[in-house]
Amino acid sequence: MGDAFDILMVTHAELSKGYFSAMKLILDINNEDMETVSFEAGEALDTFSEKLAEIIEKKYKDRKIIILLDLPGGTPANMALPFLSASRKLVAGTNLPFVLELMIAKKNGTSWEELDLENMIENAKSSMVFYNKLLKTEEML
Amino acid sequence: MGDAFDILMVTHAELSKGYFSAMKLILDINNEDMETVSFEAGEALDTFSEKLAEIIEKKYKDRKIIILLDLPGGTPANMALPFLSASRKLVAGTNLPFVLELMIAKKNGTSWEELDLENMIENAKSSMVFYNKLLKTEEML
Repeated sequence: MGDAFDILMVTHAELSKGYFSAMKLILDINNEDMETVSFEAGEALDTFSEKLAEIIEKKYKDRKIIILLDLPGGTPANMALPFLSASRKLVAGTNLPFVLELMIAKKNGTSWEELDLENMIENAKSSMVFYNKLLKTEEML
Repeated sequence: MGDAFDILMVTHAELSKGYFSAMKLILDINNEDMETVSFEAGEALDTFSEKLAEIIEKKYKDRKIIILLDLPGGTPANMALPFLSASRKLVAGTNLPFVLELMIAKKNGTSWEELDLENMIENAKSSMVFYNKLLKTEEML
């Protein structure tokens, strides 16, 4: 048996709560399944960093955790980056297909050691679909 | 001068509103810049489809529109797919880097004809980043 893992999503404004609500609709998740942190307009960077430290270093101390970020180079991602470690994996630029596949793995009891994030990221990239081009190609086959 | 275009985001639950709030924080957008539609828990499919028709076929009649969807194969994407046409482009599985690049193009006055969605999708895929792997690679260089 490998270790369990937790999921934390850190984003601009209400985006993480939006992801939570979509995941709740699709998989009926609850607050134990995914925690969200919002960087709000006008929030001081040191306040935000302290908020992250409180959650990541205290609440999830000695836990394995996946930290989902909305935008590489954005403030939430930049402020979360210093918390990266062997027991904390950070993925930025996530979309719903990625969050969904990760949550299904967690719900199915996939362990931290079994998790293949690189493969999930490749799947998530393949799930970014331009329907007009896709349907045009299919018509041409 | 080419045509202007509008942006509509259709998602599970509050995800589209979450994207709006993140975009508002980053670019100070308003309701003219992006419209959001939510598919809510327990909503009947025909009611949702009628809601989409009301917006897409009436409000945006004779307009060029990009419809952003959260999950290929999900209900919001499936219900929006029949509205695809030459003047309505649908992209599913979007992430914040994609929505941001699209919005910056709109704000900069990029026309419908100039828009290169395929290139934007490739950029958005490159913006899906596994920080642990990235930093490990850089250390090894």
